[in-house]
Amino acid sequence: MTYCVGLFLDRGLVFMSDTRTNAGVDNISTFRKMFTWEKPGDRFICLMNSGNLATTQAVVSLLEERTKPHNDRAPTLFAAPSMFQVARLVADTLKEVISNHAQTGQRADSTFNATLILGGQVAGGPPRLFLIYPEGNFVEAGEDTPFFQIGETKYGRPILVRSFDPAMSFEAAVKLLLVSFDSTVKANLSVGLPFDLQVYESDSLRAGSSTRIEANDPYYQAISDGWGEALKSAFDSLPDFTFDSDPD
Amino acid sequence: MTYCVGLFLDRGLVFMSDTRTNAGVDNISTFRKMFTWEKPGDRFICLMNSGNLATTQAVVSLLEERTKPHNDRAPTLFAAPSMFQVARLVADTLKEVISNHAQTGQRADSTFNATLILGGQVAGGPPRLFLIYPEGNFVEAGEDTPFFQIGETKYGRPILVRSFDPAMSFEAAVKLLLVSFDSTVKANLSVGLPFDLQVYESDSLRAGSSTRIEANDPYYQAISDGWGEALKSAFDSLPDFTFDSDPD
Repeated sequence: MTYCVGLFLDRGLVFMSDTRTNAGVDNISTFRKMFTWEKPGDRFICLMNSGNLATTQAVVSLLEERTKPHNDRAPTLFAAPSMFQVARLVADTLKEVISNHAQTGQRADSTFNATLILGGQVAGGPPRLFLIYPEGNFVEAGEDTPFFQIGETKYGRPILVRSFDPAMSFEAAVKLLLVSFDSTVKANLSVGLPFDLQVYESDSLRAGSSTRIEANDPYYQAISDGWGEALKSAFDSLPDFTFDSDPD
Repeated sequence: MTYCVGLFLDRGLVFMSDTRTNAGVDNISTFRKMFTWEKPGDRFICLMNSGNLATTQAVVSLLEERTKPHNDRAPTLFAAPSMFQVARLVADTLKEVISNHAQTGQRADSTFNATLILGGQVAGGPPRLFLIYPEGNFVEAGEDTPFFQIGETKYGRPILVRSFDPAMSFEAAVKLLLVSFDSTVKANLSVGLPFDLQVYESDSLRAGSSTRIEANDPYYQAISDGWGEALKSAFDSLPDFTFDSDPD
């Protein structure tokens, strides 16, 4: 499994992904699930995946035109005139890869499926955030649903639902993501550190801060330990239940 | 779906279940998913289910020997000499019901499946808590895993993992369960109020407090609203992330 979240803030986009892949609990690896493309002044694109890693890597390779000699490559990602066209291109490529694999004789379609979060901005348009399904269709984040999760989404959802605020700072957003990821890691072996973080500031048209957060990162440790304590205080601050006394 | 939790505390057992059943989002109903049997001074038994409600109701009917005339009924639940034997009886009945339904021509086995939480105490033995699988086998809660969840377990798990303490009071345990249930209800339409609550005090050999918590219950409202605020304070109390300044 996997856990990736894309947040649509007033001031831009924040992406976080874990890096654990597993085929059974005895076959785990660390792979990057976040891919970015940048043409400063023109566009920034970030893609995260859950599901079959071979499928996603094939999608990325096709998008980068790795089928062609190095000198002939002119990735259409950089030619698409809008984020909507970027999303269509990625979605079509995803659908094609899944379909190709399914046709080679393997019947377990779900094995080849992948779900993607795509976000970014192309000059002339606003920043946009999409959730792309293996069927090749997609939905866009808006005011009502300003974030997308893929993979092992349930453990980390309550804190996102309660604490997400589109006006929050990038710094607070990273804190929120780390709490959500930490809750997931503590409950599910298939999601693991390190986490990849990418920030995109609206209208900057270039990659913002990015970093890899390792398990021994002091800030992550502070959040992980601190959240346990903070939750405990929060829990203690609420009144206990009172049982009715015996009926007269 | 469903959400039920059974907690094994030092001072006894606490059970909570939701009451929503659904066959599609346009076919929802309220059904009790918690069943109790009591023979004061001899035993107390509580059973909760997730999965196919027809299966569980059939299990309960068979356990109560409703196939026999009223006067001939001598439920073996009351004859079993230990909680282990009660668990075997319930598990065998569950397996038999699922198998019978599957053999009548319907092929969608999972449709008939149910998973159960069973807890209680029989005179002469300690209180025990079991998780019973549709295959008819079961596991018992112990020190390392002092609670069981069934149904839509993921949303409400992080707070249980972080805040459960076997030494906690019944009053604090109910608060914990309500926070866990509230997180689930807020994230998943298939879990709904009212909630059924049952407490069993160790060695009492009789039913403890029980109540149904409705959506407009003032304590539930206080927890639901208060938890949002408390979480927000907890979140604010942690330090924000700091982006590294540009590399030199």
